[in-house]
Amino acid sequence: MIRLTYRIETPGSVEKMATKIASDQSTGTFVALPGETEELKARVAARVVAIRPLPPTARASFPDEAGDAVSFNRADVDIDFPLDAIGTDLSALMTIAVGGVFSIKGMTGIRIVDMKLPPEFAAAHPGPQFGVSGSFALTGVKNRPIIGTIVKPALGLLPHETAEMVDELIDAGVDFVKDDEKLMSPAYSPLKERVAAIMPKILDHEQKTGKKVMYAFGISHADPDEMMRNHDMVLEAGGNCAVVNINSIGFGGLAFLRKRSGLVLHAHRNGWDVLTRHAGLGFEFSVWQQFWRLLGIDQFQINGIRVKYWEPDESFVRSYQAVTSPLFSGADVALPVVGSGQWGGQAPDTIAATGGSTNLLYLCGGGIVSHPGGPGAGVKAVKQAWEAAVAGVPLGTYAKDHPELAQSIEKFADGKAA
Amino acid sequence: MIRLTYRIETPGSVEKMATKIASDQSTGTFVALPGETEELKARVAARVVAIRPLPPTARASFPDEAGDAVSFNRADVDIDFPLDAIGTDLSALMTIAVGGVFSIKGMTGIRIVDMKLPPEFAAAHPGPQFGVSGSFALTGVKNRPIIGTIVKPALGLLPHETAEMVDELIDAGVDFVKDDEKLMSPAYSPLKERVAAIMPKILDHEQKTGKKVMYAFGISHADPDEMMRNHDMVLEAGGNCAVVNINSIGFGGLAFLRKRSGLVLHAHRNGWDVLTRHAGLGFEFSVWQQFWRLLGIDQFQINGIRVKYWEPDESFVRSYQAVTSPLFSGADVALPVVGSGQWGGQAPDTIAATGGSTNLLYLCGGGIVSHPGGPGAGVKAVKQAWEAAVAGVPLGTYAKDHPELAQSIEKFADGKAA
Repeated sequence: MIRLTYRIETPGSVEKMATKIASDQSTGTFVALPGETEELKARVAARVVAIRPLPPTARASFPDEAGDAVSFNRADVDIDFPLDAIGTDLSALMTIAVGGVFSIKGMTGIRIVDMKLPPEFAAAHPGPQFGVSGSFALTGVKNRPIIGTIVKPALGLLPHETAEMVDELIDAGVDFVKDDEKLMSPAYSPLKERVAAIMPKILDHEQKTGKKVMYAFGISHADPDEMMRNHDMVLEAGGNCAVVNINSIGFGGLAFLRKRSGLVLHAHRNGWDVLTRHAGLGFEFSVWQQFWRLLGIDQFQINGIRVKYWEPDESFVRSYQAVTSPLFSGADVALPVVGSGQWGGQAPDTIAATGGSTNLLYLCGGGIVSHPGGPGAGVKAVKQAWEAAVAGVPLGTYAKDHPELAQSIEKFADGKAA
Repeated sequence: MIRLTYRIETPGSVEKMATKIASDQSTGTFVALPGETEELKARVAARVVAIRPLPPTARASFPDEAGDAVSFNRADVDIDFPLDAIGTDLSALMTIAVGGVFSIKGMTGIRIVDMKLPPEFAAAHPGPQFGVSGSFALTGVKNRPIIGTIVKPALGLLPHETAEMVDELIDAGVDFVKDDEKLMSPAYSPLKERVAAIMPKILDHEQKTGKKVMYAFGISHADPDEMMRNHDMVLEAGGNCAVVNINSIGFGGLAFLRKRSGLVLHAHRNGWDVLTRHAGLGFEFSVWQQFWRLLGIDQFQINGIRVKYWEPDESFVRSYQAVTSPLFSGADVALPVVGSGQWGGQAPDTIAATGGSTNLLYLCGGGIVSHPGGPGAGVKAVKQAWEAAVAGVPLGTYAKDHPELAQSIEKFADGKAA
């Protein structure tokens, strides 16, 4: 049995709307039809199994459909879909249990707030190939977050310029570097040339120091064949990671890639906010991320504390809990990628809010490269912030004998890293 | 140059927000960075080229972000992206020009309302393989809409039960039959068995009458390899059409399929409403459908007049105009699939609202199969309604000597087909 939980908002009856969803999304039809029998409908019909009322609201989430109503009833409704009606294909799951619900008349809001899948989905999907343990093994990091940064500006560097910047970041001691998600393979920086310019820097550094920095190349392409060619280029050059823009390639792109991939798949969720930012509409991240983890994401970008984007801290915390909670086993957990306006100063609050684990990739852009002492001092400062946070020492105290952290606090504590 | 038009809503300055979007979505970064030069940024920077103010609103589209503000400024903002910054890959276009905009702080709403692509996109993408002319040629229909219906119930028929229903529908004289979009390949009706049960009915009928009914099988699968196996099964059995749930397979799924497809691709847009139903957020259909048409959709479902779903008639009309307007040439036009609660009674208003063309696929579910005289009379009634509408004769008048239409009016005119 597959269980979906919908947060329904309607000027009318929540119960009636729940029944309509269950009917429309399984056996329902316009009118009674010849040949339609109760027996066969019962085999695959979805069923409303629980309705948990919520306080009504005076504000319609779809305001144009409020009509004359001034109060809107709300409830969380559990609907069970027989596995036989859907199977384990994720496009069937999306189509049947989600696809049509946003088109139904008579609602002023609907949000998918929970999804519980049976174990058959574990067997049917690959899940992450490298995941948390693979990410730490490949970077050689232990007992602290993987410290990462992003090559900026997002667009506009020639391959050799990018490589020079990467060289500086590697020397600074970062564990992980990524292309901005908007950098894929434009004419001024074809992926092939970027790989050729960057990978020797990574491999040289590895040969000299034993430390192989993980570089995530932007391999996304709407055409899976092209994306595989991009993947192969990175792998053949000795690379071990790729940024995939999951919304822009879709289930098909990721499913195709994962089956053939030798790279750690780092998900950027650009475009996701349109599906979640209005609290009465769309999806909770906890639902949506299940699809992508089953399909094989290793590292999942999820914002952080005090980000430069719209997302409130409590929403980030729920996202963190979602990606780090097993769906079926610990092997399907994705590495949370905490980023946006980070410089280390958010480490204590991140630890406090997420339960103290350092199993994360901590992405700092300006927080590292714009450190007054240069990127090397920036990396040191971020590591110091995490040491302090793990030890429960206030950052100000720890900064007294850690000058790089002191400089970061001076420069970024008022939010300038964002 | 690629031009996007964003409808921005903010309690602050629209101009500032427009500049922020242009910066964030191209060369922008957190803070000034070493190595960043004006020259390289200028090469690929997006630019605000026009701001057309709209009346302010008192209602925030993202209400949780209204703060203390009581009025929200609005404008349509044109931003140009150099083709060199994006290229012609649709995943890059989606990521760069759309992906991040929904995450930007300080807005209370943003909707993508227009997108103009340069001719390089025409050369880079296949577009429809069959399109309007192919759909009419394969069904043999001339000078009227292709009349289609849907096998119902959506879920719960065994393959032989579906085939029996299809047999009845073929005998009724329909041109087109489709699986409900929720029917793909569940355990009780594997696609292979459904194809084996249905195609002989289609081919027998063709042999007897010369008319080959187009049957659209639900081939969608999140895994493109599986979807291709489904495609091949249909093609090898003599089928010529497939329902693809575009949101559930993504750009990657459709791009992969189209390159290898021998079938007419009939798009069901389930899940789309979440992106468009709130008028202050998400996408206009005219923007979103461009991606899918470039990727190769032949037939595009777009609702109709007086549908059973939430969509107002004027929104349907805009959708109709969108799919029937060439992007670069007439060859890239998709066949509009007009459906939901249709029974023929909407034909006059459909013609009046869309300019009189009968180049469409008119999908009736209950409007055909629940006709009091049976599905055969239902098909006749729908054809009669279109004859009357094309001739400009009121349906009531035409019904005087067309008894099937008279029965339809009697049964459905109060909206019961919906």
